[in-house]
Amino acid sequence: MSLLCDIGNSFAHFYDGKRLWSVGHEELERYKDQKVCYINVKVDLKKRLEDFSNWIDLEPYIKIDSAYEGLGVDRKALCLAVEEGVVVDAGSAITVDLMREGKHVGGFIYPGIKALEGAYASISSRLEYEIEKPPAKRLPLSTREAVSYGALVPLVEHIQTLHSHIYTTGGDGRLLASLMEGASYDRMLIFKGLEKIKDGLC
Amino acid sequence: MSLLCDIGNSFAHFYDGKRLWSVGHEELERYKDQKVCYINVKVDLKKRLEDFSNWIDLEPYIKIDSAYEGLGVDRKALCLAVEEGVVVDAGSAITVDLMREGKHVGGFIYPGIKALEGAYASISSRLEYEIEKPPAKRLPLSTREAVSYGALVPLVEHIQTLHSHIYTTGGDGRLLASLMEGASYDRMLIFKGLEKIKDGLC
Repeated sequence: MSLLCDIGNSFAHFYDGKRLWSVGHEELERYKDQKVCYINVKVDLKKRLEDFSNWIDLEPYIKIDSAYEGLGVDRKALCLAVEEGVVVDAGSAITVDLMREGKHVGGFIYPGIKALEGAYASISSRLEYEIEKPPAKRLPLSTREAVSYGALVPLVEHIQTLHSHIYTTGGDGRLLASLMEGASYDRMLIFKGLEKIKDGLC
Repeated sequence: MSLLCDIGNSFAHFYDGKRLWSVGHEELERYKDQKVCYINVKVDLKKRLEDFSNWIDLEPYIKIDSAYEGLGVDRKALCLAVEEGVVVDAGSAITVDLMREGKHVGGFIYPGIKALEGAYASISSRLEYEIEKPPAKRLPLSTREAVSYGALVPLVEHIQTLHSHIYTTGGDGRLLASLMEGASYDRMLIFKGLEKIKDGLC
C-alpha cells in the first residue's frame, strides 16, 4: 500500500494505515522513491513534488459539493470525513467549515495560535505571552489572561453557534476541543477523508 | 488651557478642547515646550517624556475600581468615560472592557486589524488580504470573505454578548461599530475620560 501524505504550510504528515508521523518539508526528499498519495497546500513545493515520479497528487480526485470558490484541498479532504457538523483544523491557520448532509455550507479562516502569538508580540512587548487555556466563565483580570481569552474565547463561542457536533484536528485541535462542548479531537481526520477517495489510486 | 495627549503604540493623539489630531511619535518633540497633560503606553518613550518639563503624566491620577492587574492607563482613561457598557478601543490592539455601575468588571485583548492582516500574511501568501466588512448572515464562500469573517465576526458576536450598550473608539472603531447592534463610535471617548480627572492639574 502507498503512504498517504498531507503537506501543510508548516509540516508534512504521513500515514501508513497504522501510524501517523510528521516531518519538516526539507525531509520530503527522503521519501521520493516511495509510493505516496499526497495533497499539498504549500505553493512553493508544488513544482518540486511533480518531479517525484512515484507520488500521486490526489487533488484532482477530491470533489466536494460546495459553492465556496478556491476551497483549499486540505479543507476539502477534511470535509469528506464529516457528513454533518463543524470541522476545525487548528494548524498554521485555523480553518472552520460547516457540513450539512454531506454538503459544504461555507467556512472561515482564523489565524493559528503561533500566528496569533506573533500578532500580539508585533503590537507590544507587553503582549508577548504564550496562548493557553483562558479563564472560564469570567472576564480576564490580567494581561496574560486577556491575551489568551481574546485569542480563543470569541472563536470557540462562535464555532459552537454553528453546529452541536464539532470535530477538531491539527496541532492545536486538542486545546480547542477542550474549550468546546460537543467537540471531539481526531488527529486522523484528514486521512479518514483521503481514505474515502484513494481506492484505485493508491 | 493645556493640551491633552494620548500616546498609543502607533500614534499620539492631541485634543485642545475643540480639535483632535494625530501625529507620529517622532513629532512629539515639536510640542515639548507647550503645556501638555498626557498618558502614554509606549514603553520606550517613557524616559524621553519625563524630560519634557511642561508635560504632566496623568497616569498617577487615574483611579478606577477594578480587580484587573496591570490595566493599561489608556484603558483606564476610556473606562472613566463610561459608567455602564462595553468599551472597545480598536487601535494597534483591540481592547474590550466591561463597565457595570462605574466598576470595571474585566476585559480582554484582541489583535488590531493591521496585526491580524500581518498574522494571516505570515501564514501564507494565499491569506494576504485587507480585512474589510465581512458578509452578514451567512458563512463565507471565498478565501477573501473567509479572512475578514474570521478576523471580525467571532469578535463582534462575543462583544455583543457582554452588554447591550457598546462604545467603540480608535482607528478601526467605526468599522467595528458598523458590525454591532447597539454600538456607537466616539473618537473622543478617551478625552472624555481624561477631562473627568484633569481639573486642578491641566
